[in-house]
Parts: sequence; C-alpha cells; structure tokens
Amino acid sequence: MASYKTLRVAAIGYAFMGKAHSQAWRNVAAYFDVPPVEQAVLVGRNAEHVAAAAARFGWAESATDWREVIQRDDIDIIDVCAPGNMHAEIAIAALEAGKHVVVEKPIANSVEEAERMLAAFEAASARGQHAIVNFNYRRVPAIEVARRLVADGRLGPLHHVRASYLQDWLNDPATPMSWRLRRETAGSGALGDLGSHIADLVQHVTGESIDAVSGGVTTFIGERPGGDSGDGGIKGTGGGALEKVTVDDAAWGTAHLSGGAVVQLEVTRLALGCKNAMTLEVYGERGSIRFDLENLNELWFFDGADGAGEQGFRRILVTEADHPWVGAWWPDGHIIGWEHTFVHQFAEFLNSIRDDTPSSPSFADGLRVQRVLAAIEESSRRSSQAVRVAE
Amino acid sequence: MASYKTLRVAAIGYAFMGKAHSQAWRNVAAYFDVPPVEQAVLVGRNAEHVAAAAARFGWAESATDWREVIQRDDIDIIDVCAPGNMHAEIAIAALEAGKHVVVEKPIANSVEEAERMLAAFEAASARGQHAIVNFNYRRVPAIEVARRLVADGRLGPLHHVRASYLQDWLNDPATPMSWRLRRETAGSGALGDLGSHIADLVQHVTGESIDAVSGGVTTFIGERPGGDSGDGGIKGTGGGALEKVTVDDAAWGTAHLSGGAVVQLEVTRLALGCKNAMTLEVYGERGSIRFDLENLNELWFFDGADGAGEQGFRRILVTEADHPWVGAWWPDGHIIGWEHTFVHQFAEFLNSIRDDTPSSPSFADGLRVQRVLAAIEESSRRSSQAVRVAE
Amino acid sequence: MASYKTLRVAAIGYAFMGKAHSQAWRNVAAYFDVPPVEQAVLVGRNAEHVAAAAARFGWAESATDWREVIQRDDIDIIDVCAPGNMHAEIAIAALEAGKHVVVEKPIANSVEEAERMLAAFEAASARGQHAIVNFNYRRVPAIEVARRLVADGRLGPLHHVRASYLQDWLNDPATPMSWRLRRETAGSGALGDLGSHIADLVQHVTGESIDAVSGGVTTFIGERPGGDSGDGGIKGTGGGALEKVTVDDAAWGTAHLSGGAVVQLEVTRLALGCKNAMTLEVYGERGSIRFDLENLNELWFFDGADGAGEQGFRRILVTEADHPWVGAWWPDGHIIGWEHTFVHQFAEFLNSIRDDTPSSPSFADGLRVQRVLAAIEESSRRSSQAVRVAE
Amino acid sequence: MASYKTLRVAAIGYAFMGKAHSQAWRNVAAYFDVPPVEQAVLVGRNAEHVAAAAARFGWAESATDWREVIQRDDIDIIDVCAPGNMHAEIAIAALEAGKHVVVEKPIANSVEEAERMLAAFEAASARGQHAIVNFNYRRVPAIEVARRLVADGRLGPLHHVRASYLQDWLNDPATPMSWRLRRETAGSGALGDLGSHIADLVQHVTGESIDAVSGGVTTFIGERPGGDSGDGGIKGTGGGALEKVTVDDAAWGTAHLSGGAVVQLEVTRLALGCKNAMTLEVYGERGSIRFDLENLNELWFFDGADGAGEQGFRRILVTEADHPWVGAWWPDGHIIGWEHTFVHQFAEFLNSIRDDTPSSPSFADGLRVQRVLAAIEESSRRSSQAVRVAE
Repeated sequence: MASYKTLRVAAIGYAFMGKAHSQAWRNVAAYFDVPPVEQAVLVGRNAEHVAAAAARFGWAESATDWREVIQRDDIDIIDVCAPGNMHAEIAIAALEAGKHVVVEKPIANSVEEAERMLAAFEAASARGQHAIVNFNYRRVPAIEVARRLVADGRLGPLHHVRASYLQDWLNDPATPMSWRLRRETAGSGALGDLGSHIADLVQHVTGESIDAVSGGVTTFIGERPGGDSGDGGIKGTGGGALEKVTVDDAAWGTAHLSGGAVVQLEVTRLALGCKNAMTLEVYGERGSIRFDLENLNELWFFDGADGAGEQGFRRILVTEADHPWVGAWWPDGHIIGWEHTFVHQFAEFLNSIRDDTPSSPSFADGLRVQRVLAAIEESSRRSSQAVRVAE
Repeated sequence: MASYKTLRVAAIGYAFMGKAHSQAWRNVAAYFDVPPVEQAVLVGRNAEHVAAAAARFGWAESATDWREVIQRDDIDIIDVCAPGNMHAEIAIAALEAGKHVVVEKPIANSVEEAERMLAAFEAASARGQHAIVNFNYRRVPAIEVARRLVADGRLGPLHHVRASYLQDWLNDPATPMSWRLRRETAGSGALGDLGSHIADLVQHVTGESIDAVSGGVTTFIGERPGGDSGDGGIKGTGGGALEKVTVDDAAWGTAHLSGGAVVQLEVTRLALGCKNAMTLEVYGERGSIRFDLENLNELWFFDGADGAGEQGFRRILVTEADHPWVGAWWPDGHIIGWEHTFVHQFAEFLNSIRDDTPSSPSFADGLRVQRVLAAIEESSRRSSQAVRVAE
Repeated sequence: MASYKTLRVAAIGYAFMGKAHSQAWRNVAAYFDVPPVEQAVLVGRNAEHVAAAAARFGWAESATDWREVIQRDDIDIIDVCAPGNMHAEIAIAALEAGKHVVVEKPIANSVEEAERMLAAFEAASARGQHAIVNFNYRRVPAIEVARRLVADGRLGPLHHVRASYLQDWLNDPATPMSWRLRRETAGSGALGDLGSHIADLVQHVTGESIDAVSGGVTTFIGERPGGDSGDGGIKGTGGGALEKVTVDDAAWGTAHLSGGAVVQLEVTRLALGCKNAMTLEVYGERGSIRFDLENLNELWFFDGADGAGEQGFRRILVTEADHPWVGAWWPDGHIIGWEHTFVHQFAEFLNSIRDDTPSSPSFADGLRVQRVLAAIEESSRRSSQAVRVAE
Repeated sequence: MASYKTLRVAAIGYAFMGKAHSQAWRNVAAYFDVPPVEQAVLVGRNAEHVAAAAARFGWAESATDWREVIQRDDIDIIDVCAPGNMHAEIAIAALEAGKHVVVEKPIANSVEEAERMLAAFEAASARGQHAIVNFNYRRVPAIEVARRLVADGRLGPLHHVRASYLQDWLNDPATPMSWRLRRETAGSGALGDLGSHIADLVQHVTGESIDAVSGGVTTFIGERPGGDSGDGGIKGTGGGALEKVTVDDAAWGTAHLSGGAVVQLEVTRLALGCKNAMTLEVYGERGSIRFDLENLNELWFFDGADGAGEQGFRRILVTEADHPWVGAWWPDGHIIGWEHTFVHQFAEFLNSIRDDTPSSPSFADGLRVQRVLAAIEESSRRSSQAVRVAE
C-alpha cells in the first residue's frame, strides 16, 4: 500500500455537507487502511469565507473557481458538496477532466441530469475513473448487518417493507426560506432530500428494485419568510418578506418490490418531535428487522428460527469488532456517531480506486433512485394512480 | 341508581369475542357504577358446547336459537359476537324486537348491510333504544388521553397521522383456513378485521373524518389447508386439502383528513414478530403523540410547549387515578390488560342506556368506517387512484 | 373434576388487596380448570361498608367477626387480606380450625410471627391442609419463563442479580399517614411491602438462597399529616396533625447467593416517576434476563448462544399460548394486566388442594423472606456490616 | 484568538486511550474556537510501533523517552495515556517541567499517589499551569444537561441516586490477562476503571460529595491465560499459562451524599449483554433523570411540574444547537459518538488555559474519587461496614 500514490482531494462546498465530508477526509486514514489521501483544496464562492473554512476543516488551500480547480493536474478526486442544481455540471466536467468524483445525494435534481451524469461516468469508467453518489446510510454498520441478513436468506421471502424519514425542522411556520425550499436549487423538498435516502436504502437492503409506485406530495406551509444568506446551513437566516415555497414538505408512496413485497414510504419535514427519524422495517417469512437512525448503533432482529416461546425482536448493539467497519473504531459498546458513515463511505471509495473494483453507491444507483422519485411525483399528479418506474 | 331496573343480557357467540364480552359483563359492576346487569343467556349453535361455555363464563342459561332469544321479554340487551355475515340480520331483528344492541366490529361485511343497520337503529332510537359497535380501542385509557389532548388543542393543527395494525398469525403458510379467511363469512381479511379498528381510531382521536383515500390490498398466500371447525377461535384446526383464501392478507391506504392532514394506514397479518402491534402516531404543529397496543398502558406525548432543549416524547404510564376509567382499577403503575377495554366500553354503554344519552361508538360511526374500507377496496381495483369516501 | 367438592372461600379484608383477591376468586374458574369455587363470605369491621363491598365484589354474604367465620363448617379457605399485624393471629386460628389458608405477603410483621405460622402450618399440613403466602409476582408469565430459563441452565452460573422495586407514592410530603406507615400495623415500610417481593423473586427465579446481606434503611420524611380512616386504600385521607412515621421509606442491601452471585436489592416509595417499577436483572455466564413490572408482559433475554455479531437482548412478548398460564387468556399479543397474577396464583393453589400436592409459595418461603428482611434491618443497625441470614 | 500562541502537545501512550486522545487533538479545532493546537510528539516504548501510530494518528513526530520529551521547550501540554501506575511519575515530572497536563482517569492507582499529584499541581498552578483528569463522561451533552437541571433546582432535594457501569468483556473465562488485570499496573479492576467514572459522575451531576460508603469487591474468575503483549488494547493476546488475576472483576457500594440522598453504585466486567452500560438515575422530590451511555445522545427527564395525568419520563434527544457543545457538530437529530466527549473535554481544557480559568475535572476531583474507591476497598475488608470518605 505504501507505494500507492497519494490521492489529492478538492471539495466544492463547505456548508453542512462540506463540513461533514471534510471530517471524513481528515480522519479516514487514522482508522482504515486506505491509499494516502490529502485534503488539497476547498472551493467556495466567497474567498474570505472559504479560506476560513479551509483552515478550520484542514484543507491545505482554498479557491473560488471550481472550473479552474478541476483542471489542476495535482487533484485526483472532486467531491461535490454543492446544491443539487450544480451536481450535473460539476460532476460531468470533473469526469471529463479525468477526475474521480464523489457526488452528494441525491445525484441530481432531475432524471435527465442523472442520465447525463451516468453517461459521463460510463465514458470515464472506461478510462479507469471512479465515482459514487454519497448515500451514506448504506455505511451505517447496522444497515450493513441488515443487508447481509437479507442476502443470507435469514429473513426469507419478504412481505412488508416500511421506510420513513421524519424530521421537524420546518414545523415552525416562521422558519425562513433557504435554497432547500426552492425548486430551482433543490429540485424537490423532502422527496429528494429524505426520500432519496429511503428509496436507496430499501433497494440496497433488500437487493430488489422498486417496480411501481403510487404516491403523493404536499406542501403544508406555502409561504415562508425570505432573506436567507443563500449558501449557509440548513436553516436560512430569515427576516425578509414572505416568499413562496416551491418544493414539497412531505411525500409518500406505496411501492412493490420485484419480489412482491409491499413497501410503504413516507418522508416529511413537519413531524414534530422527530429530529432525524429515518426508520426501516423489513418483515420476511423467516425473520424481520427494524432500524431507527436516531439510534443508529442498534439493529433490531426477529429471528423466526429462535425457539418457540423465546422469540422476540433483539436489540443488537452494532458496536463489536466483527461488525462491519466497527473494528476500526472503539471497543464493544462505545457508540459511533452520524458522521462516521462518511468515513466508512470514503474508505470504501478510496479502496475501490486503489483496487480498481466497482465503486458504490454508483451513478446507476443514483439514477434509479431519481426515477423512483420522479414516479412518485407523476403519481401525485395522477391522483395517486400507480406509475411504473422506468428502467 | 338502586332503583334502576336490572338489564339482562343475551350474548350470541362464544368464541374469542364471546369470551371477551362475557368477562366484561361479569366484571363491569365490580368496578363501575352502572345499572344492575345480569348475564342471562349465552347463545350458540351447538347445545352441548354452548352450555359448557355458559357455565364457564358465568351465564345463567344457554340457548341455540337466537331468534327465539331476541323475542324474550326478559332480555334487554342483545350482544352480537357472531361472525360478520350475521351481524346485520341479528342486529336488525333485535332492534325491531325492542332490544338494545351491541355489535362486535366491524359493524358488517358491506356498506349496504351497515346502511340497513343504521336505518334500523334510527327507528329504534326513536323508541328509546341504544346500540353500539364495539370499537373497543376507543376505551383504552391512553387513547382517550390522546383524544382529549387533540380536542383540547394541545397538538394544534395536524400534519401527519400514521396508523398501522400489524400481526403475524398468518405468516406460516401452514396456518389453516377459518371463517376469517373466507369472503362469505368475513367480508374481507385484514382490511375489515384490523383496518376497521384503525380507520375508526384515526377519526375518533382526531375528531376529523377521512375524506378520500388511495389504497390497495393483497393476498400473499393464496391457498391454505382447509378443515377448520368453523366456529372456533382465531386459528382453524387445519388438516384438510388446500382451499382458496378469498380475503386479503394485507391492506393499506393514504388518506386525507378533513383538516388537511395526511394519513398513512397499513394492516397485515403477515408482519413476522408483530403480535398485536396497532400503532397510532399523530403529529401536530404544537404537539405529537404515539401509541402501541402491545404496550397499551403507555402514551407517548411530545409537548411543543416544553422549554427549549427540554423537549422530548414522554412516556405517560396511563395508570393513575385521574386517567379515564383507571380510577376504578388499581393504584398507580399497576397495569391493566387488553380485555379491560371491553369493561370500559360496556360501562359507558350501560350508563348511556340508564341516562338515555347518545351511545357510542354509534352505528353511524360503524357505517363511516365501512365506507372507508370500501373506498380502499375500490381504489385498489383502480390502480390505487384516490377515491372519495361517500358521505 | 366435576365430582370434586366445591371450595367455599371467606376473605378477610376488602381494601386494595381484598378487591384484588375478590376478582381472582370471581374469575379463576372462567379461565382455568380448577375445582368448583365459591365466594362465600367477605369479612370486615364495618358492617355497612363490608356489605356494600361484598355485593360489589361478588361475595354471597358479609360478616364482621372473623373468629366466627373461621369456625363455620361451610368455609374451606380463609383468605387473609388484613394488615400484616393480624396475619399471624388469623392464619394460625384458621389453620387450627381446619381451613386452607391464603395469606397476603409479607407473611407477617416479624420473624417470630412467621415461625409460629410455619409451625401451625406444619401441624395442619399433616392433616391435609394447604396454605400459601401470596407472592403473586411468581405468577407473572414472564417471571415464570425467566425461572425456567435459569433452571434449564440457559443462563449458566450466575454472576449478578439486580432487583429493585421503586415507587413514588410517598414522594409528596403532604401524603398523609395510613396503617402502612406505622410500625405497629405494618411492621416495616418499603422493606416489608416491596422488599419482600424482590427477596422472594430473587430466590425463586434463581433457585438459590440468600446467605448473607449488608444493608440499610432510611426514612426521608419523618412526619406526615395524620387522620387517615384506618382501613382504607393505599393512601389515607389526611388532614390531621403531623404524626411520626415509624417505618422506613426506603431500604437496600447487597447479598450473596448460595452459588456466589452478587445481588443488589433496593426498594423505595420516593423515586419520583417510578410508579410500580419492580425490575429484575440476572446476568449469567451464558445468558441474561431483564424484567420490569411496568411492562409485565415482556421478558428481555440475552442468549449467549446466539451467533457472533447477532447477540442482543430480545424482547419476548410473553403472550403466546405456549407461555405459562397465557393459553387461558387471549390470542398472541393481547396483553394481560397486573391482577391476572392473582388469578394464576389461585388457580395453582386450588389445584394443589385438589391434587394434594405441595402448595407454593409456602409459609417456609414466607419465613425465609422474613429472615432476609430482618437481616437487612440488623445490618442497618450495625453500620451495614454484613449479617448472615438465619436458616 | 489569532494572537494566542500555538499549544503543542505530546501524548504518552497510543493504545486505546492514546488513539482516542489523538482523534480529539486532531479534530478539536475544526469544531470549537480554541487556541491553535498541534499534535507534536507521540511517545511509546517501541520505536517502530510508535512511529507507525504517530503517522496514522496525525502526530508530527514520535519518540521513546518520555523524560526527554517533557523537558523539550517546544512542548506545552503533556497528555498521559499510559497505564495507571505511571500517572504519578509522569504527571509530577511534567508539572515540574512547567507543562500543562492531561491525565487519563483514574488519576492514579492509590490515594497516596493522587495526593502527591495534587500537591505538584498546586505548586504548578501558582506558576500558571493547568491540569485535568479526563473524566470524559462529564462532557457527554446529556450529562451536562442533567447537571444543569439539578443545579437549577429542577429536581428538588434528592432522594436516590443509582449509578452502575456494566460491561461483559471478561465474561468469557478464556479472555486472557492484560495489564488491566494486574494490581501492580492497574491498581484495581472494575473498581478503578469503571467505578472511578461513576463516583465522579455522581458527585459532578449532583454537586454533592460522597460522605461515607459501604461496599465490596469480588473476583469471579481468579485465573486467566497469560501471555498478553503488555501494551496493547483492552484484551491481551492470551495463549500462555494460567496467571492469577490480582484485581477485582466487580465492585459495589452504597453511599450517602452530603445532602442525604442514598446512592447505589455497581460496576462489573461480567454482566453478559451489557457492552458499555453506564447508567445514572437521579430521583429528586421535584424531578428525576435517567441516562444510559449506550444511548448517550438521550436524556430521560421526569418533570414533576408537568400537569397531572401528563407526567412521564421524556426522552430528550440531546442533539440540538442549544444543548451544550452540540451546536459545534451537526443539525438536530444527527447523533454524536462516544469519542466526541474527548473533543469536548479538550476544547474546555484548551480554553481554560487560554483564559487562565480553573480547569476541570481537577486533580482535586481525581483525588476525591480515589478516596471513594479506597473507602469501598476498606469497607470490603471490614465485611461491608460503612467507612467515612477522607476529606
């Protein structure tokens, strides 16, 4: 490994996701055997702010022109943390410039963008480049344990999947506008932001694809105070005149998996008391699992093979050395946090580059999710009539 | 109260529900101030079996001809615990014979039956008779606390309601047929049996009605061993040749409440590990609640009025003297069981007879639920396109 | 069974425990195959009150002189629900009068009384009589599952036992005096009332005896308003001048089991927020269990034999037909309540009379518990120095 | 802040604790406004191993002679992660050399060592130096919320405190020896390792001191396979002949706080199924709290000021911007992990150096804990007789 060349990263964006990605680049080599990696450049629009962020988050340099950065010979990986409307342009340019690419989820704001990105990736892949969409929840150890249980047949044929992602940060009507609440920047609201996570997870954990979906979207609060700074954190700063919210507050759908299971999906930003409640339940003929992101170190497993009178959902504290990725961290029972999933994701990505093995979650995975989201929106327009997901 | 005449009850049916109703008639006067009540006659088809059941469950007599019993002058209340396909005939005859009536839920197997029952009730009501549909979960103390919180505005305008009723007793394909799996006796499967409970609860707790619904039904296991005894408990005895299952195993729907909230409904008999998991979640702008029937003594309440940094779902152990119905039982923290809900229901019913106040859950409530179920089935036939619920 | 003579019961006391015992006598034959049993006489000091209670709770007669009642030829079982200071006198007289006896726990207010009661029982036992101390929590189905797991070696050698019984009904200094707070009637406070339960359970579930104990007792609130009615419910009516509390509010101890495990015991009536939180944890080399009375239908079991990476405490919902006593009640997942434990206890007792097999919990069990409590009080007087439990 | 001189750190030890401390030094400045800090030197006995660890964990240099390092002018902070028997020697030397000092908990292996360390600190403090003992659980946000609730009187006068720290990594008798199981290196077993945490937390959260304690210690498994590497992780490598375990496996005590509350303490390394279960419960007259380290982002709070019938333990997900330290991390509901407590600790320490305010947890705190542990051991030798804690 020592002989592998150092991979130098440039990240574009330094708000919530840029901060989360930065910590992963900064820490990944302390825990995992990966190729040497360097935090080379952090890119943002405001020179002063991005310089401060670069210093704070451990980047060697900062820059303001992403186009220039992706042309630099000393950069190997472009990490796109910018809003969704910029994903396609940056990612495609970076792939054409010969870079490996990380794109934050969802892959894009539309199916059309995602299709172009996949095409660009396929061309780049033929040149030995790698790319992922950062569906980071695939890298929660408990989720990986769940996936393996399904893959090993421990759940048997599946009957029901229930996935939801409930938050409440828009519950207050006074919470102001931000780029996440405008269609032109965010593409959609809870549907893309949260629905993309669960649409991916359902397919990833079950190993099956969503064939058809009936669904809907709604916006509970149609106008909010404007005046946000535009590139800040999750919540804007507010204070301005009322502005129209042009994305959904909540979305839902009932889908069928290729194997026949019924899938319930629901996402929202207005479920008071739910802070980051992404839950996944999978019920099979021989076993069942439950997961809640607010307790991400736990997986609940019901094993139908347990003795009669002794069956029950068991709480597996997924913090043991033989659990996926966990051996790199701390002794049994010392829980990890949300951001560790990014470290796992980047470790997997770096090693797929080193070994030239397929990187995942792939742009194809990202496109498939985008098509599910598009089908929900179309079904919503058709009074929830079921819509087939394009292949 | 001592001067109030004794109310004499005849119950029809002595399987699962007959046993549960019997205990409620036997115990209600020990805990609640109600008119005097007597367990007069238990009615069933098999003379020997019903006599044994009557002796065991505390009934003074047994009989085999329900038509005869409802004509007896010494009977005041007819309690219908027979399968759904007999509800309309018995209840209407009993109302016409001048009796008060209890009908187990769902009110009937079809909207048409329910409409005729309501008409019969309305005529009887004018003569001073009373009738209820036994949606017993309205009488869970925690549910009543929830309903009051909503009614008092503690939750504010509602955004999301999530209700599910998950069981697993049909998970094993070897589980045999019973009357509950045949359309001619049961009307539907999980939809009517479990869906009726949550359709009623959602409307009861929120005080709003379901306006429209998009939904579906499915049968995972299309054939099961036949040979059940026909009038037994939940599970038949099996052993026969395969017989076609003619009801649904699972059903679901997305509804909108009159006030705009989005409602997710799901019921199933094949969610392995879920024994009796009826859950209800209501998210409002100012507060939220959660409930799970497997822990029916608990209500989880998130109060948005709690101080910043101190908010959270709190587990109210609904076992205190100032909780509804609970004062009649035991000291704080001494939990009650599932069947206590029947005692509460009958206490309320007996007192509504005594005081001649409206009895609830009413036949109108039962009909409304039946229309929601019918709308789900119709939507299922229309590729889940949303269907308005008839008024 | 039909030929077995009817057992006629007289109960002495009709407050909290009398009410709970009454429901068990009233319902036991509806669920369990037991000898015929009749609620013959309810005994109390106030003729009017006891007559009303008898009518309400299903007793054929009432009476005010317990000495007279225990001499009646038509009474077979004397059920002692009076305060602890009357247990010895009544139970011994009843045994000498040839009756079977139920004594509410703890068996008595002192070791000396318990020794005399055991002697009386041994003489009566030679004449074919039966007697139990009503440690009803032995009859929680989840506790019986736990006991069997230990007995079957599923936990292996035990290392740690942790038992506590935390309530909060004395948390408010304004809560008035009652017979439970005076040494002359109650013998002790939390120690006897709650500590007796956990001292019995620890020994019952583990099958081992407590050899030695170091402990203490304390009274947080030394004076309370007097004026209680004297024979009422748990809480007196208050309103009088301050009266000295002469029993403990809380007690604790560390014990060693005969097999070497370390046992932590703690009971209190002033743990705010704990309504009826009797918890039991047993940690063995091969498995562990956890139980909480506020969720008495659940047992948590950690099976060290589960596969690596798949281990965890599993929640067994102890409501299935193959769980002890549960088959008599309702389908899977339909929970039972606190008072059902009395029904189980009396079913076991009636059948031990019918079959003339040893009845349990025995007076010897009651005496052993009394000795543990006495050892805790003695240790408390000796600055918590460990004291051996008498044999 | 920019003008504050850079603080350069040398850490001694790179096993479990060295790794945890390293990540905190590496990340603290990315999240908190602290003086500039540099990971200057990592010190260990084996030159090759420590060089590799230094490279991995982000240290600029490595070294093998700690005495040399503490004399270097370019080092400001000495961070002692070596086994307990080296704490006193290193810390005293470092203080005498003018360095600020961090000592991993417990402060030392004996009261005498701790007293010498405190004396050295007091001399150094007069020269402007700072030192802490790393009781990192003080820096769990939920614990800090708990402490503030107590300090603000929200719990009222305290009645009961229950603290335990249960692990199971020594449950298997085949688990081999390591430095943690030898008295000469570790001082004690679970008592010092785990008991020091809860003895500190109880006093920190309540703001009261432990006055007297009755307790005991035990060793369940007296011999284990030898042959560990000696400086590795938690578990040795085993394989050698049996060696005598010279420390406790479990310890416990009942203490009284200065304000009268009763405190139960229990720690063990053999509670199967408990991975890292440090729990704290505090019951006061007006409120109560509960905490479990395996879900360290949650605090359960029972507020006696909540309305009648609406009271219950509420789960506060301590992940909001207005919770202590949390604003530095991620949006609401994005949980942090175990190691974040080290980041918080070092942020507090660095700022106390910068501002020259008292650093905590102080060496005096460490000594006080050591005296509690010593009192438990003494009580254990005296048949658990209560022992006063020296002041």
